[in-house]
Amino acid sequence: MIATTRPKVAMLLYPGLTLLDLVAPHAAFAGAMETHLVWKTTDPVQSDSGVVLHPTTTFEDCPADLDVLFVPGGMGQAPVAADEDVLKFLADRGARAQYVTSVCGGSLILGAAGLLRGYRATSHWSGVEVLARFGAEYAEGRVVVDRNRITGGGVTAGLDFGLVVLAQLLGEEVAKVTQLMLEYAPEPPFDAGTPETAGPELTAMARAGNGQVNDEMIAVAEELAAKGWGRAA
Amino acid sequence: MIATTRPKVAMLLYPGLTLLDLVAPHAAFAGAMETHLVWKTTDPVQSDSGVVLHPTTTFEDCPADLDVLFVPGGMGQAPVAADEDVLKFLADRGARAQYVTSVCGGSLILGAAGLLRGYRATSHWSGVEVLARFGAEYAEGRVVVDRNRITGGGVTAGLDFGLVVLAQLLGEEVAKVTQLMLEYAPEPPFDAGTPETAGPELTAMARAGNGQVNDEMIAVAEELAAKGWGRAA
Repeated sequence: MIATTRPKVAMLLYPGLTLLDLVAPHAAFAGAMETHLVWKTTDPVQSDSGVVLHPTTTFEDCPADLDVLFVPGGMGQAPVAADEDVLKFLADRGARAQYVTSVCGGSLILGAAGLLRGYRATSHWSGVEVLARFGAEYAEGRVVVDRNRITGGGVTAGLDFGLVVLAQLLGEEVAKVTQLMLEYAPEPPFDAGTPETAGPELTAMARAGNGQVNDEMIAVAEELAAKGWGRAA
Repeated sequence: MIATTRPKVAMLLYPGLTLLDLVAPHAAFAGAMETHLVWKTTDPVQSDSGVVLHPTTTFEDCPADLDVLFVPGGMGQAPVAADEDVLKFLADRGARAQYVTSVCGGSLILGAAGLLRGYRATSHWSGVEVLARFGAEYAEGRVVVDRNRITGGGVTAGLDFGLVVLAQLLGEEVAKVTQLMLEYAPEPPFDAGTPETAGPELTAMARAGNGQVNDEMIAVAEELAAKGWGRAA
């Protein structure tokens, strides 16, 4: 069932990432793929809920040729999208990776690195209008596939995303066995997972928690545009 | 929206836990609750996919009176279910917690601590037949509520579980806003999340990966029964 050479995925860590953005696809990948958690150094990195993770490799030591480059979103996504060391790493690995991927606001970081210019993509519902600032075209869908770019919606979309990527790389049988191992037969107790089903009042409450991140990302997009960063990608 | 006193949840860490069993409910709890990751020491703990987590407190320092005691499953669940220090901690906090809860094989660890005797509960699909060995009665359901015991099914059931617990503690509005923040409107790309939908061939493949854990848990149940542990709970 497992290929003799396990596909390599590098998953970006950074201060203020959303833990579940990372862990949902990691759960899909971990059994059948070689997973790397990559950051500038191997010092611990704190997620936006306070949980601390350890990078397993650095930008310098990360495998050069990846099957999957993956970027999660998070409350700390704006500073990382403005960080040239990060953008250079993503642009380099993304230029050669078989798939360039994200969940949630991770697509905005890919966009900042110039990797979504001219591609259809998605993001967390609260951030989809920011995608165009980074040259991407918003497309509806929980998981959006455009050529070798695969982007997932907000947070929990990482489960659907992870299985889609796994099926692309290793086939449907591996993806289905993984779905069964993860007992992924969801039964949300409420129907409030999108702005449409939650309604305007709950959406306004949820948006209040994310509005600042969007303002920060728009400022990053303007800063990068002024510098000309990413135009060539 | 957030209560002035945030409910306290202690989530057990241990070597070989399944990361997503923990992180899915953590994502539901983190915004509105005071979360503690508890183990014997604050030394790093490695999950069964290799990702390392840091306990935030110890058995000794963990708040005595919890709103929620939570235990995840994992490939390392049998050694921890046989560990008297763990069982004493769980029995102590579980005796006073408002809710005693688990996801996946965590219910078997609760059972080992005597906390599910006479309660209906669930577990990962591959382990539900082991529940009776620990005095619990298996009940169908993605999330099973029996008085103040709330148990979830395998791995990804932790999302549904987390929202159910959040609604119990803080009301439906908080749970729905959280569902929206997490964009939890699942669209699994395949219909293979249960043995019934996956079919016998894929189920046999998935079971092969989990069978040893069940054998280990049955041995733990026999060892604990011989010692008389948990009978009084």
